[in-house]
Amino acid sequence: MENYVLATYRIQSESYDFAKKAQGIAMGLTVGSWTDLPLAKQEMMQQHLGQVADIRELPAVYDNLYAAEIQIAYPVINFSPDIPAILTTVFGKLSMDGKVRLIDLQIPDTFARQFPGPKFGIQGVREILGVQDRPLLMSIFKSGVGMELKELADQFYQQALGGVDLIKDDEIFFSETYAPFAERVRACRDKGLEAAETTGQRVLYAANLSGPVTKMIDKAKYAIEAGANALLLNVLPYGYDILQRLAEDPDIPVPLVAHPALSGALYGSADYGIAAHIILGTLMRMAGADLVLYPSPYGSVAMERGETLKIAGQLRSEHAYFKQAFAVPSAGIHPGLVPMLFEDLGMDLIVNAGGGVHGHPMGPAAGGQAFRQAIAAVLAGQSLERAAESQEELRIALQVWGKK
Amino acid sequence: MENYVLATYRIQSESYDFAKKAQGIAMGLTVGSWTDLPLAKQEMMQQHLGQVADIRELPAVYDNLYAAEIQIAYPVINFSPDIPAILTTVFGKLSMDGKVRLIDLQIPDTFARQFPGPKFGIQGVREILGVQDRPLLMSIFKSGVGMELKELADQFYQQALGGVDLIKDDEIFFSETYAPFAERVRACRDKGLEAAETTGQRVLYAANLSGPVTKMIDKAKYAIEAGANALLLNVLPYGYDILQRLAEDPDIPVPLVAHPALSGALYGSADYGIAAHIILGTLMRMAGADLVLYPSPYGSVAMERGETLKIAGQLRSEHAYFKQAFAVPSAGIHPGLVPMLFEDLGMDLIVNAGGGVHGHPMGPAAGGQAFRQAIAAVLAGQSLERAAESQEELRIALQVWGKK
Repeated sequence: MENYVLATYRIQSESYDFAKKAQGIAMGLTVGSWTDLPLAKQEMMQQHLGQVADIRELPAVYDNLYAAEIQIAYPVINFSPDIPAILTTVFGKLSMDGKVRLIDLQIPDTFARQFPGPKFGIQGVREILGVQDRPLLMSIFKSGVGMELKELADQFYQQALGGVDLIKDDEIFFSETYAPFAERVRACRDKGLEAAETTGQRVLYAANLSGPVTKMIDKAKYAIEAGANALLLNVLPYGYDILQRLAEDPDIPVPLVAHPALSGALYGSADYGIAAHIILGTLMRMAGADLVLYPSPYGSVAMERGETLKIAGQLRSEHAYFKQAFAVPSAGIHPGLVPMLFEDLGMDLIVNAGGGVHGHPMGPAAGGQAFRQAIAAVLAGQSLERAAESQEELRIALQVWGKK
Repeated sequence: MENYVLATYRIQSESYDFAKKAQGIAMGLTVGSWTDLPLAKQEMMQQHLGQVADIRELPAVYDNLYAAEIQIAYPVINFSPDIPAILTTVFGKLSMDGKVRLIDLQIPDTFARQFPGPKFGIQGVREILGVQDRPLLMSIFKSGVGMELKELADQFYQQALGGVDLIKDDEIFFSETYAPFAERVRACRDKGLEAAETTGQRVLYAANLSGPVTKMIDKAKYAIEAGANALLLNVLPYGYDILQRLAEDPDIPVPLVAHPALSGALYGSADYGIAAHIILGTLMRMAGADLVLYPSPYGSVAMERGETLKIAGQLRSEHAYFKQAFAVPSAGIHPGLVPMLFEDLGMDLIVNAGGGVHGHPMGPAAGGQAFRQAIAAVLAGQSLERAAESQEELRIALQVWGKK
């Protein structure tokens, strides 16, 4: 099946004739009709025809509601090399056809190589930062909406002083009247350099890329001229395609940070929509995200742990064509959670915190330091309690947010 | 509330403190924090702060699962005038926060006027076609994948001969090796003119616009140079923003047809996601669709009738800034359904059929004619059975697909 995209669906239906259903999908979402084609035409169309790869009946959900997992193989030749073509084909019309959920998606190497994948990936981002031997630390602007340039720059500086590696914009930051994009990038770059004189450490600023998709490539380049060293994108609202175009462009030589905004509308239900590891894992990596944020299993906006591990698996698995992307579990993260996050994701974890940095009683710089202390403790095989005995920032963080 | 976007959510939660939840949304999705801001700063930020507009508690779903409808008012000043900014703000992070569904969205006129809305709308499309006094008829290519130019052109001609007003591409038509976009447009335009010599009627061809969003504006213009007189877009997969940019561009003077592909992944569940009338109604019209396809309540891919009427309501309501868009109920439509569709949508209905045209035993031209006969009968206040007595195409269609 090396020339087929494999899509697996869980379908619930009042009819138990899943073989017929599967045939209908395989044909209907590829060549449209088959049996009424002349034989010579069938021969020509064979390469475009979808195939039923597997049907696995599941226990009935209740009387008169049957369930099955159906896997359909779609010929790669039917697609243009972009994610809208894949989504439209494998879950365009079908998404509207009753209780159906896309639960798995396999892209063959022959097709994957036509996608950019991460430009930098885990190793590339580590090289930019000059950090190889520990998980990274990322912090989030407390807010952006309505803030003035000077306030943002000060907030950036305070975060950077704590030893964070990356700082991301508030993803709902669209009203740029008081702090226009390029000026913000310039001011934060300067503050990053200033903080580096104290910390000795480079910091990346993922500025929120917004506005018309038709102008986004130019806007990104303009930001890079102004000193941007990373970019944040709300991938679902703007579309995977613009992420792919940013990743493909050699004149945008900065890591791309994917925000999961809106993804819950797709993955939330167990019966409908698309599994989170496809939306936030498979497709984000193909389209070229270097870092992907998603809800952690331990934080305030929670996702089931198994699902988060599947997302991380998609982002970081060995792949013939794609670099590994960073998995960034987010929301409600505080230093006490670092051991669990490390156990799940290991060295290539990015610890991403908002309130856990800004809410530290000693200020955001201490907030960042508490996280760095927690990371160092975990790497040293030391308990957080033990490390906190000699480190005040961590001790206070554990008092405020608890030990897990 | 004229300077606020009003978003209503249905939230299910194990906590019944919906007032606190609502406050958290209003603040968290706008200015981020409030009580710890200095008073002078609060004054400045007031205009950016979200407001709780309404909380309506619903009966508990079951013990320990409470439900409420919460309406939040988001200041327009926080948004850039595009749909990704709206979606990211009102349902970005919140979509991942448990059982929550966006069930209503109200855009104030002050903000709406910054969006294009339909370029032609119902009246404009009617003027292009020269048809004022009846519902329109649209037919769908039987397939596109793997088809050669000549086959497509022939299929177009057969459909056009039946008196259809619009013909739309197969929305999964991405592999253009045998029938490149511009050549397809040119061939179908020629066939449309040829058919018009027989039918005396103009026909629009909505060619499927695909490929990189960064090149889509140019591709549309290139298609128009080649003779395109309408364009089809899979709006959800490619993103609302590119629809808005196509609609805004004065050099793309053709109607835009929005396909609902992927929308079921968002609206399918009752507990998660976004209501269909927002996705396929409100936002499609704002962004500039002239025609919007959606599942009919009577066809093979069914949607509940009340929901379809809400979609149509959003597309066609009186509006200070937007032209009306055509509502196009689709999937499994045959002539026997025309009376019910007409009862729901009246004169400004578009009857859209695929199998109901191509599957007619006398061929697709007769298939189109049967629909036109059904439309004429309904307008004349005649039953289909009565009309079928003197019209063979309709009589046979009713035999094949039934009377409703």
